[in-house]
Amino acid sequence: MTRKQGTLVIIGGHEDRDGDRVILKEVARLVRGGRLVLATVASHEPEGYFEAYQRAFADLGVTDLVELYVKERSETTSEEKLKVFEGATGVFFSGGDQLRISSTLGDTLVEQRVREIFQRGGVVAGTSAGAAAMSDTMLVKGSSGESYRIGDLHMAPGLGLIRDVIIDQHFAERGRIGRLLGAVAQNPRELGVGIDEDTAIVVRGRRFEVIGDGGVYVVDGAGVTHSNVAEAEPQRALSMYDVRIHVLSAGDSFDLGRRRPVEASALRESETLEEQAAGE
Amino acid sequence: MTRKQGTLVIIGGHEDRDGDRVILKEVARLVRGGRLVLATVASHEPEGYFEAYQRAFADLGVTDLVELYVKERSETTSEEKLKVFEGATGVFFSGGDQLRISSTLGDTLVEQRVREIFQRGGVVAGTSAGAAAMSDTMLVKGSSGESYRIGDLHMAPGLGLIRDVIIDQHFAERGRIGRLLGAVAQNPRELGVGIDEDTAIVVRGRRFEVIGDGGVYVVDGAGVTHSNVAEAEPQRALSMYDVRIHVLSAGDSFDLGRRRPVEASALRESETLEEQAAGE
Repeated sequence: MTRKQGTLVIIGGHEDRDGDRVILKEVARLVRGGRLVLATVASHEPEGYFEAYQRAFADLGVTDLVELYVKERSETTSEEKLKVFEGATGVFFSGGDQLRISSTLGDTLVEQRVREIFQRGGVVAGTSAGAAAMSDTMLVKGSSGESYRIGDLHMAPGLGLIRDVIIDQHFAERGRIGRLLGAVAQNPRELGVGIDEDTAIVVRGRRFEVIGDGGVYVVDGAGVTHSNVAEAEPQRALSMYDVRIHVLSAGDSFDLGRRRPVEASALRESETLEEQAAGE
Repeated sequence: MTRKQGTLVIIGGHEDRDGDRVILKEVARLVRGGRLVLATVASHEPEGYFEAYQRAFADLGVTDLVELYVKERSETTSEEKLKVFEGATGVFFSGGDQLRISSTLGDTLVEQRVREIFQRGGVVAGTSAGAAAMSDTMLVKGSSGESYRIGDLHMAPGLGLIRDVIIDQHFAERGRIGRLLGAVAQNPRELGVGIDEDTAIVVRGRRFEVIGDGGVYVVDGAGVTHSNVAEAEPQRALSMYDVRIHVLSAGDSFDLGRRRPVEASALRESETLEEQAAGE
């Protein structure tokens, strides 16, 4: 596998677009003057998305914003679609349905282009469905605002830009702790990462930092001593003992390899995240 | 302190009243043919509550259901109000505002009657606000459906029928994990117990069992290695590392003293909960 060297900006949805725009500013910074491809693929009706982001990015230094919309999988080989990636140093997946991203782009030349940008040190950002699609196995559907029911969860293979992590978004706003716990119960190898609205994780290598307004919840099932996820009937509520949770907010960092928050002091001592990423 | 010997039934709100009525059945069973006092004190407008519970309990064996409503604290000394407790073996606090329960009944003869029923081995049940009021320190207000903001939480002294526990209700339904984490961050001595709707914990001594349809979340902050709850400005989102969470469902038991779920096997080997309670 090619060593990944780029940056992911994984956003919990509803990022601020007309105030401080902390998250979009970070995306703009990471684009470093190159082209940013706004991939509205997740949407069934992408009208208006591009214009909205054009306005939002207007005075943030992104001078070359282009839209990529792919309605059908067959379009992914068209020269016209592939041309938008020329000179691109960033891709931004907007919201909608994560299954549209994976089913339309999975194993296509378009996906290849996205990977290339990432591997060349560019940025791949995604909000809402665009965030969910980043992981190996992505959450597709599952009830919000209730406890997890065995069997009430749909997952699918995602883009795999971040490994051994399951992303959930609109996290506190839609009361999704139940479904993320359920997802992690199915295989505690996966770290659950729930991201609030207007909040993002900026991932470089195996480390991420939190930016934005809300919280990020890391659900670590490694120490789980009991769960009924494989035993019980579909309508049964979940049991799961000894889950570890880290609640993170702006400025906090997390080491995905060690599965530990990084203390601020340790961070200051070590090389900066950016230096690390560059050195890998 | 008098040794507590009764049973608490702490309900997350919206318990089923016309179907299986698993929770109300358990309350009825614990009343053991005595009088059940329905305390509608939490409500500003208690009209209709009594009739609804009368219908719900009608064929569950509760033959003597009486209402207790106290509008003003001054009424708590009235003979008429105190007379409803004659022959009572159970009290059921319905929903509304938990501050009405504590501010109206705290340190009154009515509260004394409730304690006496409990200490004589009776049952004290509460749903929603009636559940919140059970603990030493009760959650009064705090945003649902968002991550905890430092300073965005109001707590008050509750009835103290269960110690070192903070109860939250309508838990998954209203997305309240954020505020319960925030409450526990303020003093990890307190175990956070979040109860879903139509779900209850039946507490005997320092052990509880889960009944009903949904989940119960135990938030244990004892191992927390870092939190910003005392440092940060009011609008700052919470950071809190290394929280332990247990997700419980019907049939699961929890030992509040050891802060551990009780394995089903251990439960079968030991004396039953009821025998334990009787022996204490």
